[in-house]
Amino acid sequence: MLTRPDVAIVGAGPVGLAIAWRCASRGLRVTVHDPAPGSGASHVAAGMLSPVAEAYFGEHELTGLLAESAARWPRFAADLAEAAGADVGYRADGTLVVGLTADDLAEARRLWSYQRGLGLPITPLRPSELRDREPALAPRVRGGAVAPGDHQVDPRRLVSALRAAAGRAGAVLNPARVGALSEVDAKVTVVAAGCGAAALTGLPVRPVKGQVLRLRAPGRGAPDFRHVIRGYADGESIYLVPRDSGEVVVGATVEERADTEVTAGAVLRLLRAAVDLVPELAEYDLVEATAGLRPGTPDNAPIIGRLPGRPGVLVATGHHRHGIVLTPVTADLVTELIVTGEPDPLLAPFTPDRFGKEPRWN
Amino acid sequence: MLTRPDVAIVGAGPVGLAIAWRCASRGLRVTVHDPAPGSGASHVAAGMLSPVAEAYFGEHELTGLLAESAARWPRFAADLAEAAGADVGYRADGTLVVGLTADDLAEARRLWSYQRGLGLPITPLRPSELRDREPALAPRVRGGAVAPGDHQVDPRRLVSALRAAAGRAGAVLNPARVGALSEVDAKVTVVAAGCGAAALTGLPVRPVKGQVLRLRAPGRGAPDFRHVIRGYADGESIYLVPRDSGEVVVGATVEERADTEVTAGAVLRLLRAAVDLVPELAEYDLVEATAGLRPGTPDNAPIIGRLPGRPGVLVATGHHRHGIVLTPVTADLVTELIVTGEPDPLLAPFTPDRFGKEPRWN
Repeated sequence: MLTRPDVAIVGAGPVGLAIAWRCASRGLRVTVHDPAPGSGASHVAAGMLSPVAEAYFGEHELTGLLAESAARWPRFAADLAEAAGADVGYRADGTLVVGLTADDLAEARRLWSYQRGLGLPITPLRPSELRDREPALAPRVRGGAVAPGDHQVDPRRLVSALRAAAGRAGAVLNPARVGALSEVDAKVTVVAAGCGAAALTGLPVRPVKGQVLRLRAPGRGAPDFRHVIRGYADGESIYLVPRDSGEVVVGATVEERADTEVTAGAVLRLLRAAVDLVPELAEYDLVEATAGLRPGTPDNAPIIGRLPGRPGVLVATGHHRHGIVLTPVTADLVTELIVTGEPDPLLAPFTPDRFGKEPRWN
Repeated sequence: MLTRPDVAIVGAGPVGLAIAWRCASRGLRVTVHDPAPGSGASHVAAGMLSPVAEAYFGEHELTGLLAESAARWPRFAADLAEAAGADVGYRADGTLVVGLTADDLAEARRLWSYQRGLGLPITPLRPSELRDREPALAPRVRGGAVAPGDHQVDPRRLVSALRAAAGRAGAVLNPARVGALSEVDAKVTVVAAGCGAAALTGLPVRPVKGQVLRLRAPGRGAPDFRHVIRGYADGESIYLVPRDSGEVVVGATVEERADTEVTAGAVLRLLRAAVDLVPELAEYDLVEATAGLRPGTPDNAPIIGRLPGRPGVLVATGHHRHGIVLTPVTADLVTELIVTGEPDPLLAPFTPDRFGKEPRWN
């Protein structure tokens, strides 16, 4: 009989693996349960770290958590690279937010005005300044702004590095599916199962489908643009994330559906907007089209903390569109909660009991 | 030591396999050489049998051969189904040729007027007649015509059935690449290697890249339209081929390139035209995007007959966009040439020596 672990983590996505790494590094015995590590939302995700461009109306507390986690990313990436012996593709080239038509620009401006009102670092640019920064942008792009603090990381390399780091720190992977929490035996169980958390905990986590394309620059060189580009194009909101490898991630649809089929209409809309904003992308290879399921919540904010009515069970899910940027702060705060027994005040707006003292589902 | 075969065929695409089947059925000992049967142009091809809609200006002799081969298809398909014990998806629902805009319709009309002038069966339809036949067409489609004799077959099922039929008739597959004709030992060698024929024979066969998508109706039912639809949409010429399985093939680009990468721009153009013509396709799954290389020739016609200066070597290649429709007549005429030693007069316009008595390449 093996020793009962201190911490059992259900789900080997970035959040679960980062908690495993941090806990194991603190000397805890950790087991992570997942039949297919890194095969969930993170496999599809683009990896934008966008505390500013993702600061939306009415999500003040989430905006604060995004900023806190983004601030932790440089150190997190450096620590992880050292622990794993592998780089995660952290790039600090900044993000351009652009509008193709006058209507698109008005929409973009409405949001960045709100963001500037919060004191967040986003600066409008004249069209000539925009094109100086990224000559690859289409001449008809009407205008934009730069968010220099909105960076990027490669989620697939992140998962790979976290697996290595967690393993080196002593965490053990059990490649099995957990159908119910009663199957897991540990002092503390952390449910970091993305959309799977709904069935395990009864919390109101629902799948939000996202379709994403991966292009590759011809000749395998790096893309001709360095910034992450978030664009509004004829009413379509998309992002383009260039990587040193030549990859450009084009995303993403936001659909209230639970299937993972790639549809012709979604690919058409993504490609049309991408090529309208950066015409040279038409010459790129289309190497992948995938769909994933983000774990959404009623208020779009993550669910992090103790599960009501289930002593010894913590939850870290519901990260929706923000799983990659929120990985460091989630891992840090959950680890502190496990080690000290005290929740950090930062967690207060995100506890599971905001949906009722006992989960209403299940 | 094995017996020297009567016929060695280089290339196990539809043309090579059909020749193998026909020759083996006549009692000849046949070996087919190909490391990857059916992996060439036929794997990407849509399988339209379009003697009428593919009758272009200035290709009179080719048009005649297309009509001859299309006329042989029903019997060929029936014989093959019996010999192979497998169906090849032959469907006689006919083809609609449509134009999205007034300009597109003018372009389509110019071609079908030429085709009608040749006496070919293509009949203009009023928009209401068009929509009666295919309600799935977009309301903004301006007009079209029907070519009831332009049918379809499934090229992948064709290859599979031909392999079975050839094998049952006694033909042997050698899964090896032939680098030079001197490697092959047989009384007669037939080069049916598609684009690979250029290096083997010196004939002017060049790769013409085509990109093709495969969609699938949601729920796996059959598509809501039965006709093959050939459309002009904002200057883009595409086709939509519906299959009973729920598959819809959307093609194809025609590019003077030799790579087989799928590009973002081509996928965008194909999807845009497809959804403009049949809006419900936006809801279909995108299940495959592939690129293949058609064997093109200087006059767009196939090369069938004796290779000048190389006794015992026959050629059957250069079928370009017409490999599937031309499979029956090519197989019949090459088999007759092998068995009788006399070329059918139908072959006269397509002999290899029209590019010079001795190949100028190689």
